[in-house]
Amino acid sequence: MKGPVSLLVLLLGSFFLLWVSPSWAQLPVSDVTQACLDCHSQVTPGIVADWKASVHAKTTSAQALVKPRLERAISASQVTENLAGVVVGCAECHTANPKAHRDTFEHNGFQVHVVVTPRDCATCHPLEVEGYGRNIMSHAYGNLINNPVYHNLLDTVGGFRDLNGPRASYGEPDAQTMADSCLYCHGTKVEVKGFETRVTSMGEMKFPVLSGWPNQGVGRVNPGGSLGSCASCHTRHAFSIEMARKPYTCGECHKGPDVPAYKVYMVSKHGNIYSSTGKDWNFGHIPWVVGEDFRAPTCATCHASLIVDGKGNVIAERTHQMNDRSPWRIFGLIYAHPHPRAPDTTIIRNRAGLPLPTELTGKPVSQYLVDAQEMARRREAMERVCMACHATSWVRGQFARFEHTIKTTNAMTLAATQILLKAWETGAASGLARGDSIFNETIEEMWVEQWLFYANSTRFASAMAGADYGAFANGRWFMSKNIRQMADWLQFRLRYLKKAEGSRDK
Amino acid sequence: MKGPVSLLVLLLGSFFLLWVSPSWAQLPVSDVTQACLDCHSQVTPGIVADWKASVHAKTTSAQALVKPRLERAISASQVTENLAGVVVGCAECHTANPKAHRDTFEHNGFQVHVVVTPRDCATCHPLEVEGYGRNIMSHAYGNLINNPVYHNLLDTVGGFRDLNGPRASYGEPDAQTMADSCLYCHGTKVEVKGFETRVTSMGEMKFPVLSGWPNQGVGRVNPGGSLGSCASCHTRHAFSIEMARKPYTCGECHKGPDVPAYKVYMVSKHGNIYSSTGKDWNFGHIPWVVGEDFRAPTCATCHASLIVDGKGNVIAERTHQMNDRSPWRIFGLIYAHPHPRAPDTTIIRNRAGLPLPTELTGKPVSQYLVDAQEMARRREAMERVCMACHATSWVRGQFARFEHTIKTTNAMTLAATQILLKAWETGAASGLARGDSIFNETIEEMWVEQWLFYANSTRFASAMAGADYGAFANGRWFMSKNIRQMADWLQFRLRYLKKAEGSRDK
Amino acid sequence: MKGPVSLLVLLLGSFFLLWVSPSWAQLPVSDVTQACLDCHSQVTPGIVADWKASVHAKTTSAQALVKPRLERAISASQVTENLAGVVVGCAECHTANPKAHRDTFEHNGFQVHVVVTPRDCATCHPLEVEGYGRNIMSHAYGNLINNPVYHNLLDTVGGFRDLNGPRASYGEPDAQTMADSCLYCHGTKVEVKGFETRVTSMGEMKFPVLSGWPNQGVGRVNPGGSLGSCASCHTRHAFSIEMARKPYTCGECHKGPDVPAYKVYMVSKHGNIYSSTGKDWNFGHIPWVVGEDFRAPTCATCHASLIVDGKGNVIAERTHQMNDRSPWRIFGLIYAHPHPRAPDTTIIRNRAGLPLPTELTGKPVSQYLVDAQEMARRREAMERVCMACHATSWVRGQFARFEHTIKTTNAMTLAATQILLKAWETGAASGLARGDSIFNETIEEMWVEQWLFYANSTRFASAMAGADYGAFANGRWFMSKNIRQMADWLQFRLRYLKKAEGSRDK
Repeated sequence: MKGPVSLLVLLLGSFFLLWVSPSWAQLPVSDVTQACLDCHSQVTPGIVADWKASVHAKTTSAQALVKPRLERAISASQVTENLAGVVVGCAECHTANPKAHRDTFEHNGFQVHVVVTPRDCATCHPLEVEGYGRNIMSHAYGNLINNPVYHNLLDTVGGFRDLNGPRASYGEPDAQTMADSCLYCHGTKVEVKGFETRVTSMGEMKFPVLSGWPNQGVGRVNPGGSLGSCASCHTRHAFSIEMARKPYTCGECHKGPDVPAYKVYMVSKHGNIYSSTGKDWNFGHIPWVVGEDFRAPTCATCHASLIVDGKGNVIAERTHQMNDRSPWRIFGLIYAHPHPRAPDTTIIRNRAGLPLPTELTGKPVSQYLVDAQEMARRREAMERVCMACHATSWVRGQFARFEHTIKTTNAMTLAATQILLKAWETGAASGLARGDSIFNETIEEMWVEQWLFYANSTRFASAMAGADYGAFANGRWFMSKNIRQMADWLQFRLRYLKKAEGSRDK
Repeated sequence: MKGPVSLLVLLLGSFFLLWVSPSWAQLPVSDVTQACLDCHSQVTPGIVADWKASVHAKTTSAQALVKPRLERAISASQVTENLAGVVVGCAECHTANPKAHRDTFEHNGFQVHVVVTPRDCATCHPLEVEGYGRNIMSHAYGNLINNPVYHNLLDTVGGFRDLNGPRASYGEPDAQTMADSCLYCHGTKVEVKGFETRVTSMGEMKFPVLSGWPNQGVGRVNPGGSLGSCASCHTRHAFSIEMARKPYTCGECHKGPDVPAYKVYMVSKHGNIYSSTGKDWNFGHIPWVVGEDFRAPTCATCHASLIVDGKGNVIAERTHQMNDRSPWRIFGLIYAHPHPRAPDTTIIRNRAGLPLPTELTGKPVSQYLVDAQEMARRREAMERVCMACHATSWVRGQFARFEHTIKTTNAMTLAATQILLKAWETGAASGLARGDSIFNETIEEMWVEQWLFYANSTRFASAMAGADYGAFANGRWFMSKNIRQMADWLQFRLRYLKKAEGSRDK
Repeated sequence: MKGPVSLLVLLLGSFFLLWVSPSWAQLPVSDVTQACLDCHSQVTPGIVADWKASVHAKTTSAQALVKPRLERAISASQVTENLAGVVVGCAECHTANPKAHRDTFEHNGFQVHVVVTPRDCATCHPLEVEGYGRNIMSHAYGNLINNPVYHNLLDTVGGFRDLNGPRASYGEPDAQTMADSCLYCHGTKVEVKGFETRVTSMGEMKFPVLSGWPNQGVGRVNPGGSLGSCASCHTRHAFSIEMARKPYTCGECHKGPDVPAYKVYMVSKHGNIYSSTGKDWNFGHIPWVVGEDFRAPTCATCHASLIVDGKGNVIAERTHQMNDRSPWRIFGLIYAHPHPRAPDTTIIRNRAGLPLPTELTGKPVSQYLVDAQEMARRREAMERVCMACHATSWVRGQFARFEHTIKTTNAMTLAATQILLKAWETGAASGLARGDSIFNETIEEMWVEQWLFYANSTRFASAMAGADYGAFANGRWFMSKNIRQMADWLQFRLRYLKKAEGSRDK
């Protein structure tokens, strides 16, 4: 920077930048939030920077409320006067609804809580929170923990395998192990265990002692009893719609062999287009305009976002009930089946009395599941998104293949289940009739992999056209090989072991 | 550029850029294409937006034809007058060669076809289509489906495993399953099954009914009999060279355990450089200038693209015969071997009469494979690309290691094959001599994984220096462990089972 | 931007950018480097382009030396006068320390060496080279090759499995195989085997003949005896700090099932933030400012980089001893344990006399490992980085879970080891007492996977919160299943095989 000319350039350039920049006029910050910022911009500079880059820091609720419906991220029709005139800062969330928060504590003169919950977010985003309440993900903790059959699977995954005694067995997994594995995604139960005083850079301070913390799982049980964490997808403290629309967010929990959605997407044509050209898309625009803002769907496009065409015609309404456009539930359970009607699946009982949405033979337990009409509605909602780029024959061909694959993968799971049932009948393994876990013996673990890994992977590959996940990458090759290996194992147990000993031995 | 002169240049340059920019002056669009756009910008806005962003929408053939040879994407020496003056729009492809299209139908007064084929693309890109015809990928459907040995592998992958009767067996995979797995990449056979009338947002309309649709596999058999789909790599409807040059496109089909090329690339030094710095490269420039446009090779750099140095000297000519710079075929078959001479591999027979390019012992069936001279030519073509950045000793060291790894992985496959042969000889498994599939019993499935997963992975790791895929990520660890497990299985069958029963039992 | 005012701004702004650009005034290049460039910009244009884009090409040492401490990449307090005034070009590295280089050769009148070593880099970066010398990675060659126990693992991975004789056995892996697998990352031993004359585009020239070349492994043994290759992370010839700070660099070697750090990171919340927003971060700024330059940690943030807050307060000092902020060594060995005191681990002997940092039962061999005080110091150094964004209770909760997982994964490894010990005792397998490899029989290979794959993966998942790698992606599910399968295998061997033959048979 030398000389009067460059100074002039710099001046004019800066002026121009400021003039078009949204931060030209500093937006009002509440006094409480300002007090938070005064310390925390020093103490935790990273999250303050995240917040400063957020829409929350750049808009007041009043400004948000006057936008046209399709352009609004806020869904409240009004907010209290003290909120309306300020940006959404630290205090607006961390001091909201103090009575609903058991983790509230006195902090430099303010009543602050650590764990911000969907109930807090509902102040401005009630429709989203309500929709998320219908989302099966909001019940991910209870649906896992309070299902006695599935609880046995947790024992196998997280329990310490004990080798004393005649056969291998499992202990109950401890809380830390659960929080570190299944509940990282499903959500922990966060509880206030008391308060403690710690010496900090600001002197002695009191803080709540939380169990199950940290956690941002989708079905987190919050200290006040509310379910879920908006930060699962809208990462703190930017809470950006951009991140939620990118596939990496979904990939945090939907990437493993049990639910390889992200991997399948990334190997699909859609994923290829995203990876190759997505850096030039507009992930922040509301509503999201097909062809202008993005060129291929991400997870959010098909399952959640408000999508419009270039004329503003709505192709899909925003939803936070993630199965709102999905007729079939294709993973997690033994067989693919129509989605449950209610997000709380612990109420489900099949004819055999098990808390499962199908019989062990695959027959759906219809009274708990959405009916054909609702399935058709959901499929049509999804197809409308497809048809923003694809012709009818393309879309119908794709769905026909997908529903065919649901049938064949269920058949391959049934084939495996029949081997397992024979193992139980013959005593080669101990199953339900003996009151034993159905997930803790060799042949049972093979059976679990049949549906939890291979059939799931094959269905995801079909749903999103990421073919190798339905072929050699945990797909049909393994479904087929696994049936052979289960049959081998059983044949061996039945013929040779029994001959050798004249009695069952495990 | 210093002083007032350069200032003037900059000013005029900016003005000129604005003036020649495609949105400055609208390029001519044919009347038929305009008719397509009038409806489809409403009906399928996504693909219209893709096209509008494409080079096809921003250049007339006449403009393309006058470019210097190295800068041309078009390879025709001339096109018909009616094409020359317009951009390449909907109608230029979807109404081309109407007589060669069995899927042509009357659509709002125009004769339109759904499935655009390489024959259509050849109007402007004849050299690319011709080269692709020599590409083994263009025959990927027939090479898989019409090879009786490999057809058995499809049964294992895609057939329903039947457990009735004394031993597990397979049914034939159905067409939907094949289209959903192997043929997604290999290509389906697309056939016109008739025509149907559907009610659309534009009223009643007639459309062809296609089987094997949708599909964009590399060896797709099109309704008119032509082979392949240019959209496999040049994704509709942008058809961009940028996407084809990025590794995600190849990764759509070359990512699974059977062909982990993408994964190996991404873990290599080259993949690291691409991932870290590729966002600043120029993927659209023709010809592609090493050091200026890109800093490390992608798949296309080594295998397909026209590469020049900064002075315009050609380092590698463009090819659409993907093995044009590859002496060795390192995946898909039992042993690595010199590439086949012809893209149609169904003509190959080894001395044992099998449609395989090697004997079961690994000896190449030379008369069907490229000779040493052609191998040397291909290797030199590849080395010239390497030497744009690497010294001779580096490149030679790399190739020596790779060819050594071809030998050792073939040896480890032979070691596994010898166990299999012994299983067949002793009757522990049913193989060729009994007319049985060689891919459908336990030890045969172990053997398949030896070469299809582990030896392939190890060779890719060596070829592209992504080491863990040759060590613990489906590499040598698994090659070695698998031999032990095959030997264990056979030993058990032979010694104990036979003793227990006094006769073979499977 | 409309109208003459914005045009003026654009114009003046562009002018300003050109005027301050580093290439505005050409920096001085040494005569020798200019001679290199004269040919090599033709012969190897790619690497010349890399260098031209580097900081090395844009700064003289003199300019670097006058920067404030926190902004310096150079750590020498002074350099020789002939270096100070020129940029760091080809000759500054490839002709440095000629006497320490056995690969030095006469090249167009200059004494040039091929293999640039840390000793050369130490001319300007002595602190980094010294720190790297304390880094266990610098000894990665010897720690693997000179450990007699681990050498057996190499035999299993890389040796040819021989099936002649009564049982499977391994040969020694050859040098090419080792260089292509384990030593790709660990580093080869590069040796000068002589000199040869080759015909080049510049006529006949003499070059050294190198074995173990090419290689850039972290513990490469260089011809002059120095250890390591700075180019492992600071990729030639840009040597950019940007690349070293991005996770792809670490991913080159830390991605496989034995050390899935990259994969775990990418599925974590931190990896999600990086993937979603990292393209807008400033990866080149020194020092690296949390919240301004980056919004979530990459590998380098936590383990290596100089991190400051927005006021310039140091949060973490730069280190090239990669375990400087890590109390626990969580991969590669049988049990997680405190990090070794010295980078050369070949000196370690446990009470059983084995070169292992723990007993086979998991007890640490404390005298060779860092003590509790040093562990606390390292943990605190790491926690300070966490606390730039997270509160104390969050960080403590995270570390408590991690250390709990270290305990439980060690316990699950011990459970597997006890089965192995029983197999050795009973003669079902041959282990240490018989002087046999502990890595080459079926049950031993299962045991290796218990800790090398599953326990490692589970610990990484815990350390970086990428949960599925601790659940179904090579995590606890497999740890648990593997123990069952080991017990099955042993039970079978002991009960049935012995009964069938009345004697042990393997």
